[in-house]
Amino acid sequence: MNVSVELKNRTKIAGISSLVGLVGGDMDEVNATILARTGSAVTMIPEVAKHLISSGGKRLRPMLTLAMARLCDYQGEGHVKLAASVEFMHTATLLHDDVVDQSDMRRGKLAARMLWGNEASVLVGDFLLGQAFRMMVEVGSLTCLDVLSHAAVVIAEGEVMQLSAAKDIRTREADYMAVIEAKTAALFAAACEVGPILAARSPAEIAACRAYGKNLGIAFQLIDDALDYGGSSAKLGKNVGDDFREGKITLPVVLAIQRGNAEESSFWQRTLEKGDIQEGDLARATGLLQQHRALVETIARARAYGELARESLAGFPDSPWKQALADVVDFCISRAH
Amino acid sequence: MNVSVELKNRTKIAGISSLVGLVGGDMDEVNATILARTGSAVTMIPEVAKHLISSGGKRLRPMLTLAMARLCDYQGEGHVKLAASVEFMHTATLLHDDVVDQSDMRRGKLAARMLWGNEASVLVGDFLLGQAFRMMVEVGSLTCLDVLSHAAVVIAEGEVMQLSAAKDIRTREADYMAVIEAKTAALFAAACEVGPILAARSPAEIAACRAYGKNLGIAFQLIDDALDYGGSSAKLGKNVGDDFREGKITLPVVLAIQRGNAEESSFWQRTLEKGDIQEGDLARATGLLQQHRALVETIARARAYGELARESLAGFPDSPWKQALADVVDFCISRAH
Repeated sequence: MNVSVELKNRTKIAGISSLVGLVGGDMDEVNATILARTGSAVTMIPEVAKHLISSGGKRLRPMLTLAMARLCDYQGEGHVKLAASVEFMHTATLLHDDVVDQSDMRRGKLAARMLWGNEASVLVGDFLLGQAFRMMVEVGSLTCLDVLSHAAVVIAEGEVMQLSAAKDIRTREADYMAVIEAKTAALFAAACEVGPILAARSPAEIAACRAYGKNLGIAFQLIDDALDYGGSSAKLGKNVGDDFREGKITLPVVLAIQRGNAEESSFWQRTLEKGDIQEGDLARATGLLQQHRALVETIARARAYGELARESLAGFPDSPWKQALADVVDFCISRAH
Repeated sequence: MNVSVELKNRTKIAGISSLVGLVGGDMDEVNATILARTGSAVTMIPEVAKHLISSGGKRLRPMLTLAMARLCDYQGEGHVKLAASVEFMHTATLLHDDVVDQSDMRRGKLAARMLWGNEASVLVGDFLLGQAFRMMVEVGSLTCLDVLSHAAVVIAEGEVMQLSAAKDIRTREADYMAVIEAKTAALFAAACEVGPILAARSPAEIAACRAYGKNLGIAFQLIDDALDYGGSSAKLGKNVGDDFREGKITLPVVLAIQRGNAEESSFWQRTLEKGDIQEGDLARATGLLQQHRALVETIARARAYGELARESLAGFPDSPWKQALADVVDFCISRAH
């Protein structure tokens, strides 16, 4: 019986569902852990945390932690708490991001800061970060603690880098790549690295899992940034244009500016740097991205990083886990179409 | 030669200076570590961090970590990084607090958020918290990691508790004590506990050091809260009245409300709950605190907790370290006079 081919066929249609199916039992434990660890006698904490945690995120990062541990034949229980830690680190970042970006919405709901104030978003983020570290300590692997605490530092650096680069149309492609490697890919990489560490696999295998996570994370963020202008079709739908309005300099914009003329440069300067955005500007922006093939090229680069992610798994024998992890790459890329 | 008596005489005058003198060499290393670990290629990070770190805080918490390690005859190097971690945790809390309280000033300088924005204060706080955990991991004691990550969670809980209790004059004394035990005393306790853990001392000795830190932290915060209304003399000087303007319900206010009549209750309701503060209200508030002996009693309680802190050290043989730690208690209390 060739399970992996069966799964491959199934996931060609189902996208991320083979991973969801495989991690099922483990993920139930992660969800129970998340629920238990957002508990506090200080009632505002579970309220705020649950608002965000139960708002239908995909929980992709903790699923990756579980899948990598299983790909590496890990037989213990530590991966559950580390997966919950990874999700808490991610949630803390979202809470703090909303304060930094002054966002009104998150995952289609009012951002926590709109309901409980910036104060609560900052402090509950700190609480979740603290709980994440507590769980890591309970698992007891100093190497995993090193990987995840390093990621916490790099994520914060990436967010500050992004803040420094915002509203500056001279931002170069290399600056942008440094930002997304730090703010997004670092956590994907760490999420994928801790499983093989728990399973005591070889340095080469650990590095391969990390490389998968890092490249998947880059692809994921590139697609996210293309989607913020409607993806390959550049359709103006809901949630489109947030980055534009916040003056974020993402790859689609960097490419379009590079290839644009002086008049276009004035347009980007007025809108992204000065924040002077008028009716029709978002449509003009997406028009320029189309004209300079900036979205198509951003997606092509995402595909290339996705390919690197897939190739990172080459050294592992075929298994349903390996196939599901390869399918995740397709899932992340296909969001843009 | 009786060094401890000599030191005792000296510190009777000098307050905290015997501790400063004793930790000198170790503290130089802590300061070098702090400087090195605020470094980042992302230039905004060291700018923001140094603005606060070099602004003349006493660095009382890391000094306590060093002193407790030496009191317990610790011979290694781990206490330096843990002391720096403790200071980073404290600094991160200050950065986030300023955002939460919307403070304009910190330690007599403009708050970081006024110079670089709330965004930078949130993110650089996150960076410092991450660096704190990295250093703890490098030291490699899972027990110390457990103590400090637990403190991080409790501090965040304390801050949220304070947020929930703010602007609510029904806050009881027990609520207030729970807030300050969490937001202040937890870090003092952890700072004092990690040294004896590194030195592999007995559970009773570790608990004694922790008790010293916890009780000193409570005393420290009680005095801080009395000082916010001018201390025992209730003089209106600079920095007085911040808590009043922010609607923070501290012990002096809780005691005055308890002992006041209905008309006074309306006054507190208008000023603290509704934030409707008019000319002369701060003077009236401090007048009521005087009248009900609320400041005198707050300071008396601080003295009682200070006594508990001092008694916690009873089991340790006399030494310059023990004397210096006892003197720190006097120093903290004497600030109120």
